[in-house]
Amino acid sequence: MRTNTITQPTLVLDEHRCLANILRMRDKAKQQNVQLRPHFKTHQSLTVGNWFREAGTDRITVSSVGMAFYFAEDGWDDITIAFPVNVLQVDEIAELAAKVKLGLVLVDDSPIDALGKKLEHEVSIWIKIDVGTHRTGLAPDQTNEIDKILDQLKKYPELHFAGFIGHAGHSYQAKSVTEVQRTYDVSLSILLDLKKKYLNTYPGIQISLGDTPASSMVSNFGPIDELRPGNYVFYDLMQEEIGSCSMNDIAVAMACPVVAVHPDRKQWIIYGGGIHFSKDFLLLADGRKCFGRMVNQNAAGWSVDNVQQNPMLISLSQEHGIVQCDDHNFNQCKPGDLTFWLPVHSCLTADVMGAYVTTHDLAIDHYRQRLNR
Amino acid sequence: MRTNTITQPTLVLDEHRCLANILRMRDKAKQQNVQLRPHFKTHQSLTVGNWFREAGTDRITVSSVGMAFYFAEDGWDDITIAFPVNVLQVDEIAELAAKVKLGLVLVDDSPIDALGKKLEHEVSIWIKIDVGTHRTGLAPDQTNEIDKILDQLKKYPELHFAGFIGHAGHSYQAKSVTEVQRTYDVSLSILLDLKKKYLNTYPGIQISLGDTPASSMVSNFGPIDELRPGNYVFYDLMQEEIGSCSMNDIAVAMACPVVAVHPDRKQWIIYGGGIHFSKDFLLLADGRKCFGRMVNQNAAGWSVDNVQQNPMLISLSQEHGIVQCDDHNFNQCKPGDLTFWLPVHSCLTADVMGAYVTTHDLAIDHYRQRLNR
Repeated sequence: MRTNTITQPTLVLDEHRCLANILRMRDKAKQQNVQLRPHFKTHQSLTVGNWFREAGTDRITVSSVGMAFYFAEDGWDDITIAFPVNVLQVDEIAELAAKVKLGLVLVDDSPIDALGKKLEHEVSIWIKIDVGTHRTGLAPDQTNEIDKILDQLKKYPELHFAGFIGHAGHSYQAKSVTEVQRTYDVSLSILLDLKKKYLNTYPGIQISLGDTPASSMVSNFGPIDELRPGNYVFYDLMQEEIGSCSMNDIAVAMACPVVAVHPDRKQWIIYGGGIHFSKDFLLLADGRKCFGRMVNQNAAGWSVDNVQQNPMLISLSQEHGIVQCDDHNFNQCKPGDLTFWLPVHSCLTADVMGAYVTTHDLAIDHYRQRLNR
Repeated sequence: MRTNTITQPTLVLDEHRCLANILRMRDKAKQQNVQLRPHFKTHQSLTVGNWFREAGTDRITVSSVGMAFYFAEDGWDDITIAFPVNVLQVDEIAELAAKVKLGLVLVDDSPIDALGKKLEHEVSIWIKIDVGTHRTGLAPDQTNEIDKILDQLKKYPELHFAGFIGHAGHSYQAKSVTEVQRTYDVSLSILLDLKKKYLNTYPGIQISLGDTPASSMVSNFGPIDELRPGNYVFYDLMQEEIGSCSMNDIAVAMACPVVAVHPDRKQWIIYGGGIHFSKDFLLLADGRKCFGRMVNQNAAGWSVDNVQQNPMLISLSQEHGIVQCDDHNFNQCKPGDLTFWLPVHSCLTADVMGAYVTTHDLAIDHYRQRLNR
């Protein structure tokens, strides 16, 4: 790639690594006969979306109504918004339902009347079940609440009950493949029990799960109908720590100029701060924070050889990044050099950057570039 | 204000509070005969910039070359980029120097030849001194390095030495007005010593400091030439904790719909996550994290009455915010209600939101809306 055109913090996307991630997950799901509905909130890019399309993806997940419009306008016609229905957006939801096969998520019955009265086209309604993350969703034993939702749905023929949806976000706290497997097994068993309970009354209902750690690490998905992982398109240091990927699978890196060096404390200052990386960090065993790990730039993009021996990004302010070196690697860079950094949380880094340059030197789109989000 | 048009996370800007902040700092600086060069990286808005202009501001600080262009195109003609010169952007810097009276910051002599050979118009060169923050800048006793920079500058008549610049970022760790005052006094004395040392050789050189805690809390600025605070235009919970402002001075709030409630754990889930607030947080004395504090919506915008008794934002994921309530306030909201939140770090919240709606219902600009940053 040509890096001499990069003069300020830039998010570089490695097409080869990204495509390998897309294909690996596709093949794994296909092999196990599980529908994949990848979450597009990580990349938020029509171009990357097209790479999925070329790999056979025909249904997607997004996290907002605006993002659903963004992809709908590019021809995606089967979209689930994996976020509790925000009743204030019912007009936009109705507009969207006229364009695409739309999936919506309910956590209670409160938006049903507003939806039912507004919608003129059928939508799929997923009931969100809390499989252990304790963020949103009904507890598996709240069948009274589930029945209340199902009763309300009967009033509106456009609101088609599609099944139960879960997100095992607590797999991000897992420390081993065994723990991720256990989280997945529990989540699956919760959704399976509900499916069995309601299948006679609602034939054809499905169950859907979708975190990247489980989708990457679990070897047997079992009788799940649909998986919705998203982060795997890029992966990041957080996923590497969990064990979802290797350093070499991470498909995005921030390119940042060095603007100062401090021999006394063996630090570099890079142009690249919280507005470029986001402020998510890994807390290391030694108590330090890691905001990014340096990789070695090469003709194709970057290599992860000896990444553990490279300097580490230990602090971010708005535009500055502080890099801790040691005696061995401090002299690798001087002001004016470009450095490459694997991000801690690629979803947020891509979101704050709002643009990519590929390792083939193409500037590509991100949803944030749309002014009216 | 009309809140019925707000359907998704929206950054609301209170014009009255904002203008009061602008005027209070202007009057304080004027009274003490100190030049104010407000930092525009917090608001990044031409509209807010105009409020400064109407209040008499004629010189500004920004944090990037792109941001300097943004404001230059709106007629600002005296701009300091308070970030170490990134030599990779020397072409853009030269272009900018042709348009405005430009101030640049050097932390070493490495960019001087590139600048000197490229620039066709005079720029002001500030030497950055580390007044104790240990992020960038020369230590006050590195006079050899200072002399090396000054010697190099002599080669290029366009590079005019303007003086010494510092940023006491460590005042953000201060716990009391006494600590902030002490930090300010030390910073001022460091810059003053350098000014005295070099004033004979470089008559007219100035010294410039600029953090919001000191600018807000220090009663006597002493013989400083220029102050460059930025955050005070909005303030935020971090500044309130330091003591720079009261809750009622904070001029921005995130408006977020409630999308779920959990009576069992007395929590609400709001539509509003890391991509809306940013991930900065306050670590409270009880070990909890605070990502935002709820204020009470009213006809004019919001009131901070009883803010300490209101629910608190304790966790953020990409789009979800988890709000902790207690028995007393849990029933205040239901799904579909709009809630208002004071942000922890307004610079980053404004940056990730990239747009404002004022309490007078005007949608106004932010630099992020420019596609080609």
